Amino acid sequence: MSLERPIRIGVAKCGNIGTSVLLDILLDERAERGDIIIRSVGSGPKLTPEEVREVVGKLLDFKPDLVLLASPNAALPGPTAGRELLAEAGVPTIVITDGPGRKAVKDIEAKGMGYIIVPADSMIGARREFLDATEMAIYNADLVRVLACTGVYHALVEAIDKAIGGLKAGREPELPRLVLGRDEAVGAARFSNPYARAKAMAAYEMASKVADLTVEGCFKLKEWERYTQVVAAAHELMREAARLADEAREIEKYGDTVFRAPHNRKGILLSKTKLVEKPKKPEG
Amino acid sequence: MSLERPIRIGVAKCGNIGTSVLLDILLDERAERGDIIIRSVGSGPKLTPEEVREVVGKLLDFKPDLVLLASPNAALPGPTAGRELLAEAGVPTIVITDGPGRKAVKDIEAKGMGYIIVPADSMIGARREFLDATEMAIYNADLVRVLACTGVYHALVEAIDKAIGGLKAGREPELPRLVLGRDEAVGAARFSNPYARAKAMAAYEMASKVADLTVEGCFKLKEWERYTQVVAAAHELMREAARLADEAREIEKYGDTVFRAPHNRKGILLSKTKLVEKPKKPEG
Amino acid sequence: MSLERPIRIGVAKCGNIGTSVLLDILLDERAERGDIIIRSVGSGPKLTPEEVREVVGKLLDFKPDLVLLASPNAALPGPTAGRELLAEAGVPTIVITDGPGRKAVKDIEAKGMGYIIVPADSMIGARREFLDATEMAIYNADLVRVLACTGVYHALVEAIDKAIGGLKAGREPELPRLVLGRDEAVGAARFSNPYARAKAMAAYEMASKVADLTVEGCFKLKEWERYTQVVAAAHELMREAARLADEAREIEKYGDTVFRAPHNRKGILLSKTKLVEKPKKPEG
Amino acid sequence: MSLERPIRIGVAKCGNIGTSVLLDILLDERAERGDIIIRSVGSGPKLTPEEVREVVGKLLDFKPDLVLLASPNAALPGPTAGRELLAEAGVPTIVITDGPGRKAVKDIEAKGMGYIIVPADSMIGARREFLDATEMAIYNADLVRVLACTGVYHALVEAIDKAIGGLKAGREPELPRLVLGRDEAVGAARFSNPYARAKAMAAYEMASKVADLTVEGCFKLKEWERYTQVVAAAHELMREAARLADEAREIEKYGDTVFRAPHNRKGILLSKTKLVEKPKKPEG
Amino acid sequence: MSLERPIRIGVAKCGNIGTSVLLDILLDERAERGDIIIRSVGSGPKLTPEEVREVVGKLLDFKPDLVLLASPNAALPGPTAGRELLAEAGVPTIVITDGPGRKAVKDIEAKGMGYIIVPADSMIGARREFLDATEMAIYNADLVRVLACTGVYHALVEAIDKAIGGLKAGREPELPRLVLGRDEAVGAARFSNPYARAKAMAAYEMASKVADLTVEGCFKLKEWERYTQVVAAAHELMREAARLADEAREIEKYGDTVFRAPHNRKGILLSKTKLVEKPKKPEG
Amino acid sequence: MSLERPIRIGVAKCGNIGTSVLLDILLDERAERGDIIIRSVGSGPKLTPEEVREVVGKLLDFKPDLVLLASPNAALPGPTAGRELLAEAGVPTIVITDGPGRKAVKDIEAKGMGYIIVPADSMIGARREFLDATEMAIYNADLVRVLACTGVYHALVEAIDKAIGGLKAGREPELPRLVLGRDEAVGAARFSNPYARAKAMAAYEMASKVADLTVEGCFKLKEWERYTQVVAAAHELMREAARLADEAREIEKYGDTVFRAPHNRKGILLSKTKLVEKPKKPEG
Repeated sequence: MSLERPIRIGVAKCGNIGTSVLLDILLDERAERGDIIIRSVGSGPKLTPEEVREVVGKLLDFKPDLVLLASPNAALPGPTAGRELLAEAGVPTIVITDGPGRKAVKDIEAKGMGYIIVPADSMIGARREFLDATEMAIYNADLVRVLACTGVYHALVEAIDKAIGGLKAGREPELPRLVLGRDEAVGAARFSNPYARAKAMAAYEMASKVADLTVEGCFKLKEWERYTQVVAAAHELMREAARLADEAREIEKYGDTVFRAPHNRKGILLSKTKLVEKPKKPEG
Repeated sequence: MSLERPIRIGVAKCGNIGTSVLLDILLDERAERGDIIIRSVGSGPKLTPEEVREVVGKLLDFKPDLVLLASPNAALPGPTAGRELLAEAGVPTIVITDGPGRKAVKDIEAKGMGYIIVPADSMIGARREFLDATEMAIYNADLVRVLACTGVYHALVEAIDKAIGGLKAGREPELPRLVLGRDEAVGAARFSNPYARAKAMAAYEMASKVADLTVEGCFKLKEWERYTQVVAAAHELMREAARLADEAREIEKYGDTVFRAPHNRKGILLSKTKLVEKPKKPEG
Repeated sequence: MSLERPIRIGVAKCGNIGTSVLLDILLDERAERGDIIIRSVGSGPKLTPEEVREVVGKLLDFKPDLVLLASPNAALPGPTAGRELLAEAGVPTIVITDGPGRKAVKDIEAKGMGYIIVPADSMIGARREFLDATEMAIYNADLVRVLACTGVYHALVEAIDKAIGGLKAGREPELPRLVLGRDEAVGAARFSNPYARAKAMAAYEMASKVADLTVEGCFKLKEWERYTQVVAAAHELMREAARLADEAREIEKYGDTVFRAPHNRKGILLSKTKLVEKPKKPEG
Repeated sequence: MSLERPIRIGVAKCGNIGTSVLLDILLDERAERGDIIIRSVGSGPKLTPEEVREVVGKLLDFKPDLVLLASPNAALPGPTAGRELLAEAGVPTIVITDGPGRKAVKDIEAKGMGYIIVPADSMIGARREFLDATEMAIYNADLVRVLACTGVYHALVEAIDKAIGGLKAGREPELPRLVLGRDEAVGAARFSNPYARAKAMAAYEMASKVADLTVEGCFKLKEWERYTQVVAAAHELMREAARLADEAREIEKYGDTVFRAPHNRKGILLSKTKLVEKPKKPEG
Repeated sequence: MSLERPIRIGVAKCGNIGTSVLLDILLDERAERGDIIIRSVGSGPKLTPEEVREVVGKLLDFKPDLVLLASPNAALPGPTAGRELLAEAGVPTIVITDGPGRKAVKDIEAKGMGYIIVPADSMIGARREFLDATEMAIYNADLVRVLACTGVYHALVEAIDKAIGGLKAGREPELPRLVLGRDEAVGAARFSNPYARAKAMAAYEMASKVADLTVEGCFKLKEWERYTQVVAAAHELMREAARLADEAREIEKYGDTVFRAPHNRKGILLSKTKLVEKPKKPEG
Repeated sequence: MSLERPIRIGVAKCGNIGTSVLLDILLDERAERGDIIIRSVGSGPKLTPEEVREVVGKLLDFKPDLVLLASPNAALPGPTAGRELLAEAGVPTIVITDGPGRKAVKDIEAKGMGYIIVPADSMIGARREFLDATEMAIYNADLVRVLACTGVYHALVEAIDKAIGGLKAGREPELPRLVLGRDEAVGAARFSNPYARAKAMAAYEMASKVADLTVEGCFKLKEWERYTQVVAAAHELMREAARLADEAREIEKYGDTVFRAPHNRKGILLSKTKLVEKPKKPEG
């Protein structure tokens, strides 16, 4: 028996990752959906256990039907504490995290939660000699572009929509257990041109590689001249990944084959490929 | 008499604008500041009065010392309702909004609030034939890049930091009354190369112009083939603005004169221009 | 009854606009047409009433069947004086001018003349600290590219050819009343790819926006450091518009769908879209 | 004894070359000079002897102190006829022409005239299957950019200004005998960066090479599929030359060393290299 | 009667040209062919008669069925001496050389040898002030890209494979007499898009033009400041040629029409155009 | 006591890697050195033990003072067999190989040989559906560019020159034990601009990452549609690495700080950074 009322989606953002930056907007990109209500609560850049607990607590006040808990490295104490609170509350939860978050999968699964892990969502070059608000924003712009153009966001929306669909149908929602690696992402992007797909795959790999450099620059190197140089290299690498991912999309524009999947008011994902064409409902 | 405890910053996000996407991260870009605590609450893409009231209400639970209320068009009923609630609560508030939000300035000033208005933060091309989650994210990536590279974010951080500084000093905070137009933004970006500055100025104008096209495409044109074409043109324009803003920053890289202003742990904005150089405290 | 002899086209160029730079060549791009003879007279960069009268007077010596009177801002005293002389002479006249020339429309219509107004034909950044012969030429190269690639020149040729066609048929010529805005231009360009069209539209808007900056830099700002910076930004904007307009055409090359409309010897506009293909006469 | 009145410059344009497109504007780029008056007369794209004679005749009505006679291949009958008329009239004349015009040098020198020959000013790909008004304009935009950025226009202005200077001083003017080859052009451009200079040199060579292809495509090849392909290659080559010449100038922007030489009201060539800097008079 | 054993290909490299850099790999690009064995001997950058003789002598030790003798300017004493030795040995030989090598054609033909001459394989800018190992390698990278993308390598492989085919069939091999000019190369490249073909043709011409500049810089100019500038311009020209040749191939990627002709294990050239498609044997 | 005669350098090329493509030219980039003689012998793309032994045998005929043994994966049986032969012959040997070659280090050291290992020298995408001669050459062009611009070749030349220097001085040569990783390479490149260095570092990492994809595509994936897509992505990644490495060098051009280290006739590495400047001998 399907629910009459809109599904309440609660988004907890604890610390910043590229996947969470637009998380509360991705599900209803034109603010038109009548089938969901979105609320988000966040702790800004920090994610201590106290802060995550406070954030999750407030989010529970909204009585969410589904919670998206987004953070870097879901295995850290903060996100872990958040999951405990959510498990106690018994709210269906999808953990959204980056590559290091893989370490939390066992715990997540044990709690009956879903997860979406994005290895390309590499850590920023968080060194004071390098990272100010402007550089941070530019890095996020590059990262968002990579995630968008390589298909990560679309895959994520599909997975969450599926869970929402279960809730709307009055069923126990099917929670994703999804590592959005190169092939999963690019598959979701539905490229028509195989070179666009190849470039997107390369871009995804580049974005994933960034984490090796930022981890080196932030945690391994001690000499400031060296780590500054390495985190700068990491951001240049993400910038190129963004450029290449963008080119992949341009190729599809050149062929007028850009895949678009807008939601309609009822929350159904329509799709189209020609620019001047009405989006259509999925068949079947 | 200065406060001993960290200042509590509450960020209300109602609907999406480019300036708000990273708002809760911009103030503490490396999660290091000990002088502030950030909490955000948001209503996702929507901003009806009920939703904004709910969001603001929850935010007040965090007992913020300063509230940043971010939304498109602050003159809409939703943001207006939010301001009323905040005015009743007596919390120092800075309204952050886009060009159409200018219409709310009188009301904002009357309530003793501050404001930061960003005319370049143009409305997205919100037509179903065109805008899905992926396109939405790409547009935001472009917009974030323009705002970052042209100096908007740095100007915004400076203004909010100033208000925080007042609170830390135990004073009534000086709330900004700031329209971050082309010259204000580019001034804050502190370009060394005058052609970088010229390109950034051009990029800012391009981003501002986007709103003319999206308003035309979303509100004036009725024929779907035509408005789809116009909103597509609008996003191409923002994409070029991002490209040009990025080039402005690249010029500064080529001369090793990128201005960077990271916060230190105490929340002081340091600054530097050479890549391999320690950031310094402001003089005086 | 059609004329046996070639139609005599007189082109008066008073001051420089992007639309006039190649005006006398656009109508017979390969110097092959047997149906027209072109003569031009110009006053260089200046356009005082005395100069325009002298130019128009000399042009009338050629006994033109049709006069194209091109100038910036057709509402200025110079072009106005030129129109008076032409009205007295009773020669069918088409005024070709930029956005500010719109103010002359009433006067033009009252004199029974036609007009072609090109809002994208923005004023140059005419400040001595910035504009020398080289910069002037580069600006014109950018502007010509925008006008060519966005369809302005083709629309202009079609309109003038129509008037010529009337004269050839021995009829009173149908003089255009045409504002070649974004949609009119891009429509004439007959893009096959909708993203090419979107980029051309964006380029057109960028070129139009340039005038806001050059007017600001040339007439509103007094401080030389500031106006130099603003006119430099204006030219960067035009440069980007040219880049984007060029990209629009490249997209059509990538699809082998560039629209070409060469004249044949009789002055008929043929057309084709594949590169290796013979141009054909219009049907019907 | 210097002349009190402005010098009258007559510009005859017979057929189109890249050097003549803006010829009447180059000498007074901001319409400010009080020391010269410019009049131009042209025959559009054609240049038969009758037409050139008519054009030159009309130009002589203006009683010019100096005539600039611009045409493709000055050795053709049309330009030759024009020179005869000018020689009879005894007006100091500078012939401006492209590479094939070199064949006329003996005749020009015999008549005591000056000349400026621009080998990079390559013939257009004038084949009906390829060249329409739009393609023609784009080619000219590319060519103008090459000529501007590689220093051709500046060298030309210097040479003509020198002749004007003689007339102003009441002397017999010193008429240039100038082939503006790669080294002469690039020398005039006064690049600060040696790689900018190298790229400009390469761009000049590319533009010069275009003529080999257009001559092949227009005069040697008979099969339309082949010549269409060859003239298309020629225009692609000019497009790349323009791109590279533009990059040369961008390098100077990146170093804030763009050489600018604007005229002042008295017609003196000032100069400057930093963007935000006042132009200065030449020393000595 | 066809040979049972693999054909032995001997490659002599005396001095460096772009065509020889990968010569021993081009014939068996994935090290899979069972029908040939390749051995190469080289004298590094030098090519005196003694050295070439020594190289050729050693190569003959391998008992090659076919020798490819690659060098700059095959008319120099070194390569000439090499040919004499090979003629004495009576081994079928294909001389592979650059434009100046054309002077050796008569001698080559007289010896019953074949030749492949590549005019685009322009001499490097061999001046000490400019050329170090890094610059040399970059020039070769650019040159290899031009040769690859414009079809030179494919044409060369086809020609050599044909000779090998004869040897395999037990026949006197048909040795090529091939000048791989613009049209021959681009024909072999089998472009689908005519603008890709036009750009490749332009790139080929640019690469050929480089030799004019390097010859000027290396042999004609004596003043070191001038020749350094000229050889730098030459390398910029080759860099642009590479960029343009690369763009030609990208166009084919955008249309998914890249022509590929891999060898199979038996040495037959298969072919395909879609990326995700199996290569097929030639028909007939 | 130093040797009077030139040092004889033998280069054995068994199979192809990016580092070996130009190996015999890198040491004497303008064919001017009087202090060395270079001979190379190669087995084309293959490297079975028999072939390597044959190649090394022939090379020993030249009586080399120093052998450079270049191959992919030096731990394969072929290169291992080659080393054995060289060890028996007692000729000082430097093994030059790619990342997988690291597995041979122990054996190399045990034999008293030197090595230069280049992890960025990634394996090509050797799948028949993808790799033909043209694609192979393009990949090598990209790889050569990365190795050149990131400093790999210069580091390699320095190391080999050092060994040669020992031989010239009559000493036991100091054979390198060098893994030319990101930092070693970029250090050798002596960038002046730190962003150029950062981009070169990123390019190096991208090139290194390519091997992960080609190994996946060549050895792990069995389904041809999938591996074709993956090797195509690998080559796109190398292409981007080349683009970025090239940009790093362009930055140095923009600042006129390109480091160049040409050999003089005596084989001494000179150095310079301004384009128009004489190279100088090292101090001390």
